[in-house]
Amino acid sequence: MGQQQVKLVVLRHGESVWNMENRFTGWKDVGLSDLGKAEAVRAGRVLKAEGLEFDCAFSSVLKRAILTLESVLAEIDSSWIPVEKSWRLNERHYGALTGLNKTETAEKHGEEQVKIWRRSYSTPPPKMSPDSPDHPSHDRRYKDVPRELLPDCEALSNTVTRVLPYWNERIVPELKAGKRVLIAAHGNSIRALLKHLENMSEEAILELNVPTAVPLEITLDQSLKFVSKRYLGDAAEIEKAVHAVAAQGKKK
Amino acid sequence: MGQQQVKLVVLRHGESVWNMENRFTGWKDVGLSDLGKAEAVRAGRVLKAEGLEFDCAFSSVLKRAILTLESVLAEIDSSWIPVEKSWRLNERHYGALTGLNKTETAEKHGEEQVKIWRRSYSTPPPKMSPDSPDHPSHDRRYKDVPRELLPDCEALSNTVTRVLPYWNERIVPELKAGKRVLIAAHGNSIRALLKHLENMSEEAILELNVPTAVPLEITLDQSLKFVSKRYLGDAAEIEKAVHAVAAQGKKK
Repeated sequence: MGQQQVKLVVLRHGESVWNMENRFTGWKDVGLSDLGKAEAVRAGRVLKAEGLEFDCAFSSVLKRAILTLESVLAEIDSSWIPVEKSWRLNERHYGALTGLNKTETAEKHGEEQVKIWRRSYSTPPPKMSPDSPDHPSHDRRYKDVPRELLPDCEALSNTVTRVLPYWNERIVPELKAGKRVLIAAHGNSIRALLKHLENMSEEAILELNVPTAVPLEITLDQSLKFVSKRYLGDAAEIEKAVHAVAAQGKKK
Repeated sequence: MGQQQVKLVVLRHGESVWNMENRFTGWKDVGLSDLGKAEAVRAGRVLKAEGLEFDCAFSSVLKRAILTLESVLAEIDSSWIPVEKSWRLNERHYGALTGLNKTETAEKHGEEQVKIWRRSYSTPPPKMSPDSPDHPSHDRRYKDVPRELLPDCEALSNTVTRVLPYWNERIVPELKAGKRVLIAAHGNSIRALLKHLENMSEEAILELNVPTAVPLEITLDQSLKFVSKRYLGDAAEIEKAVHAVAAQGKKK
């Protein structure tokens, strides 16, 4: 018998060109590296080997997540399923750090300050100037988002705050309707989701590293309470991927 | 001054593996050939060179149209726009002809009969058996479509009948809201649309050939009445593409 469980799969995009260069990416719409493209195809093959099917999918409005999702869906012959893209699943907005690499950040803001940003759940990085060409208010993809909701920068706590309404309003209804859901997103929007689902502490969530392009299957109970999670695919490869993220020394 | 015009772009998918083999494809979910993939990229570059932007896109639920659209959107850096996929934009359903090539069709059904199917607007081909594994009733992508709407076969007239409600209910409202629309579809679902928009006769629409992966810009007036259409890109290349379709001697 046992009660009905709800499963969903969450996937961080493959390596982007700026992941490769170890730069803070955030909302900058950077493409996948060649490795990232290959990772996306591999993720699709893992889902195929697991025999998983989906009824609908969600992604951010950033191409590294969208292209990863498109590759995955092509591999599992499900390009036809509905896909909804939302800014609320975007990566954390890194404010004025966007585009800087670790060395540049330390030079510009000092080692101590960088440590605070890295280890704090709710201290945001410096704001991006609204005059910056990279500011979301200049990007037509955000023109229907109320200006006061567009971030100049985000602490992880801010990312949690904007991801959750989308989870509750758009994704939960699909799960409750019995749909099998796939979400393609980013290191920190996935962290935001996991913090909520697993009811994790601020410290615990900062310690959690999400590897690129390794499908994470999450099992919930009927009331959508967290039961368990597991990465899909080859265990040794996944271990390596998780450590690679941790070794970057910063949260992309 | 002049009244405000409405423009949209319609795109037939790139060459599929079965276009290449000159087989009736219809609802069979056949992938793009290597040429088709290259055509899709080229179509995207044409739109980019024209400086065209879109606010939303539509496609069928068949991967040759979806993958063409995804390639195009990647080229114009618009992968983030909303895309809605519907069975109503699918290719004409070729019934029991699905999978046959021209020679096989003539052998099985006789030259005279083939001529009738090719030249008739409203004579459907023989039905596909509901027991056929290719029948849409066995495909989970159509499980939310009422059984009585799923075709066993279609004359072009039937394709027109099922495309138009989607045009009126889903696409027209976007155009009226000032959205710039891109539609990725199929030879006959595009014919269906053009017959309606241009108020073409049954004879005229059968003479109209839609080349693969050449963006067709349609200009409408404010009340969405047809004003003009033009293929985008290199004129000589387009001429060649149109003749290639006409020379296939059958409507895919």
